[in-house]
Amino acid sequence: MATKTTSDPITFTTSDERIAELLETLREIADLGALGSLAGWDQETAMPPGAAEVRGSQLAALEGLIHERAVAQRLGVLIGELTEAMAPPISATASAGASSPASAEADATAYTDADRGLVRHARRDYERATKLPKGLVQEIAKAQATSFDAWRKARANNDFASFAPSLGRMVTLQREVADRYGYKESRYDALLDIYEPGLTTSRVDTLFKRVREISVAVLQRIRRSGHIVDASCLTGEFPVERQVALCERVLRDMGYDFARGGIAQSPHPFTSSFGSPFDVRVTIRPDEKFLQAAVMAAAHEGGHAVYEQGSDPVLARTPLAGGASLGAHESQSRLWENAIGRSEPYWRAQFAAVREVFPEQYKNVEPETFARALNAVAPSLIRVEADEVTYNLHIIIRFELEKAIINGDVAIESLPRLWNEKYKEYLGIESPTDSDGVLQDIHWSHGGFGYFPTYTLGNLYSAQIYAALRRDFPDFDERLARGDRLFALDWLRARMYRVGAIYEPEELIERVTGEKPNPVYFERYLNEKFARVYDLPPA
Amino acid sequence: MATKTTSDPITFTTSDERIAELLETLREIADLGALGSLAGWDQETAMPPGAAEVRGSQLAALEGLIHERAVAQRLGVLIGELTEAMAPPISATASAGASSPASAEADATAYTDADRGLVRHARRDYERATKLPKGLVQEIAKAQATSFDAWRKARANNDFASFAPSLGRMVTLQREVADRYGYKESRYDALLDIYEPGLTTSRVDTLFKRVREISVAVLQRIRRSGHIVDASCLTGEFPVERQVALCERVLRDMGYDFARGGIAQSPHPFTSSFGSPFDVRVTIRPDEKFLQAAVMAAAHEGGHAVYEQGSDPVLARTPLAGGASLGAHESQSRLWENAIGRSEPYWRAQFAAVREVFPEQYKNVEPETFARALNAVAPSLIRVEADEVTYNLHIIIRFELEKAIINGDVAIESLPRLWNEKYKEYLGIESPTDSDGVLQDIHWSHGGFGYFPTYTLGNLYSAQIYAALRRDFPDFDERLARGDRLFALDWLRARMYRVGAIYEPEELIERVTGEKPNPVYFERYLNEKFARVYDLPPA
Repeated sequence: MATKTTSDPITFTTSDERIAELLETLREIADLGALGSLAGWDQETAMPPGAAEVRGSQLAALEGLIHERAVAQRLGVLIGELTEAMAPPISATASAGASSPASAEADATAYTDADRGLVRHARRDYERATKLPKGLVQEIAKAQATSFDAWRKARANNDFASFAPSLGRMVTLQREVADRYGYKESRYDALLDIYEPGLTTSRVDTLFKRVREISVAVLQRIRRSGHIVDASCLTGEFPVERQVALCERVLRDMGYDFARGGIAQSPHPFTSSFGSPFDVRVTIRPDEKFLQAAVMAAAHEGGHAVYEQGSDPVLARTPLAGGASLGAHESQSRLWENAIGRSEPYWRAQFAAVREVFPEQYKNVEPETFARALNAVAPSLIRVEADEVTYNLHIIIRFELEKAIINGDVAIESLPRLWNEKYKEYLGIESPTDSDGVLQDIHWSHGGFGYFPTYTLGNLYSAQIYAALRRDFPDFDERLARGDRLFALDWLRARMYRVGAIYEPEELIERVTGEKPNPVYFERYLNEKFARVYDLPPA
Repeated sequence: MATKTTSDPITFTTSDERIAELLETLREIADLGALGSLAGWDQETAMPPGAAEVRGSQLAALEGLIHERAVAQRLGVLIGELTEAMAPPISATASAGASSPASAEADATAYTDADRGLVRHARRDYERATKLPKGLVQEIAKAQATSFDAWRKARANNDFASFAPSLGRMVTLQREVADRYGYKESRYDALLDIYEPGLTTSRVDTLFKRVREISVAVLQRIRRSGHIVDASCLTGEFPVERQVALCERVLRDMGYDFARGGIAQSPHPFTSSFGSPFDVRVTIRPDEKFLQAAVMAAAHEGGHAVYEQGSDPVLARTPLAGGASLGAHESQSRLWENAIGRSEPYWRAQFAAVREVFPEQYKNVEPETFARALNAVAPSLIRVEADEVTYNLHIIIRFELEKAIINGDVAIESLPRLWNEKYKEYLGIESPTDSDGVLQDIHWSHGGFGYFPTYTLGNLYSAQIYAALRRDFPDFDERLARGDRLFALDWLRARMYRVGAIYEPEELIERVTGEKPNPVYFERYLNEKFARVYDLPPA
């Protein structure tokens, strides 16, 4: 199968007015949801601390209204009818009845891909909303607040034991969520599916085994070479405002549209949409002593953002606007951050902007030196600061631990010990504190089990899409080095971004790259890239 | 009647559970309304232009939900029952029935001032929401969008004729609104009452006649004196960021709480609350060449904001949190901007901050020179740039014209001519263009007839409150000159801010100052202040 340029117009059918009714309902939910996202954005970027409690009431009021709409009986009926209407007849005889087999088939084929995607999302969301009783949802919300607070304090005091009861409670609640949602093989599957539709434990097991082998092999080659990358040019004095100006330049140059976006600062960088593709904003957090943090966050969040901004406007105000899944999303943040944004050809063109903003710091630094510094590899304790080679090992450790916790194979109390053992085994390092160990991530504190694997999935998808891009543009590096990045954006928009969440992630990857998801591209990417960066002898 | 320090705790009764039910309903409406305000704030401070349409959908969805709640039958029943329960029995015999006269009276007196204020606001809002048919509300919203656009273009092209049809439409619609709301004497009364509860045309007529005499008299004294105030120290080069830092300092020094607020930039300065007293933010718009704009906007918006931040937390998430009316609100912005913020004693202390931020510009300028420059009087065409002496003449012109339009006494087409005649008569100047004449304000373009008078009302209230403050603090000027401003804030909080909108504006002024609203304080204020600023001979 070749890569598919979806240049056909994206439309919803007008031949079934139930689609119009469904759209109207989902648009209202999307509009209200967007206001909730805006409130969340404000919370991270501008809200004063004194407003925390009253904002909580406001969001609760809004979420209550959204929930009412999300579980409305009429919505369930609509989804049921449309699902049935879209199904192909089982056989000529089975479908006989009110309509003839021929016309039933004609009906089912009258729906567009967008219609089908819409109903699939609507069904999924409706089932999610109706499967959890209100009492459980409220209990989770309350437990999250307590647990987040306990985690924050435990991390500050390096005191895992004080967090363990809250964590245990989150595990219990998420097990109940999994049971309510249902699963075929493993309870943990139900949680994986929340973040990446269709993902299963067995699939992750297989993939991650391979990723671990790939990562460890590259790491060993680098170690054996004894080569060192000098990253000292990334540290120094970088006034915040000038970093913001540089990040704006990086975003603009990669095709991010400020007329439908904006940039702000927050404790952790993130991207948020209040109506894709029309309003997609990013945040950064400049570090005055370390340029890499803000610049690479800009490229990373920019990747998420150009994906959201690329949705066809027809999809606006529906669950189909934006990314297909967290994995698909992460594939784009990683593509722009790592595959493009940490490549030497890219910096050959983009480095002029760095020199313009920080002339004193970079007058004697070459673009190649800067690009190489951004790719220094060193096993470290902190996931969010990890390089491309070791990053996925951090994820694999978390996956293995949370799978075991959810499936009941290990006790909460064993987590710090198991964490340290795995860091020792996979990365060859040990954390002197639990604060920089098992307590470092926020995810588990709010019950986000099943989320971590999507990061690595994104890296795998990213490598595969990147390979397809390079295949279609044999002069890829020359274009980047000339300062052209929009050819890549146009290609991604045409094949991937514009269809939003119409297709399930695995189908989407196949449509974009011409092949089912395959980790071999990640293996090649990592080997080739770091052989170059570290000047490695052949494996 | 002496000024009343309302140090009694503010409470809602727990003896009637209908109050609790009313509170619950109004809190949900307030919470949703706060999210709408947040979206409005975002629109002015951060939203990208490409998001305008999708934001329109989001706000429409939210407003639809708020409206549903605002007209709910149960709410109407609650308000009706509570209104009746709060009324004193007409006579012993008339109230006989289910309850004895004695207990009926006991019931009515069991309600607190907050209960009564709550029911008064709820009733007013409910009547407003139910009196306008949905079709009219939608028609107004649509006409506003068109009219705003027409006004913007007409002003850019100095072409009143192109705006006249839209303006005519807004007048027709507002007349219908007035008729639906109802009034006793004049149709325009119904519109005045929207912005200032209880205000009537005849009351404004009387007040404004006096204000005009006062203003013209002071203006003539200044003219006759031939004295000139040199305001050149306010112009120069003032980098925006340093202006923002100075404005933050001004706000902090006047007691504005950044832990429950924040500052941003927008095309026009404004204050917005997303849950008073917990989240009240201000905007400024620095002018690189003219320091006065941002600094005095900070003091003005700061006045609005400390008023909102001063509401008793018990009132949070109800219609009673925040100001009693637009006039009461403007009294506080004017008090902090003009009475305090343009006084010489204030700048004797605050000028150090100006010198610190702009050392080169102000090393040779004295605080007295700076303060005097802020009070230069000169009749000018633009209301928002007017000094304290001429400002109200701008308002009176608008009042006279809009009253005549709404009551049908003049044709839309005559407005430019009448505008210019009045400017000639009241201020002795004529606008060379309609853009700087009848087209200068946004208010009429969205049908905001009846709003302008609240600005002058605020100035009158401000002078009266200021007089009461000075009466209670004989060393007022010395305190200001020492850098103390919090004594004034504390006084205002205790007497005025904490009770929010519990009392109607005229009653509030009486409670705060010990006297019914009286324009004599404004006359004294203006005369004394400008005799000092312009070194005038006795009148």
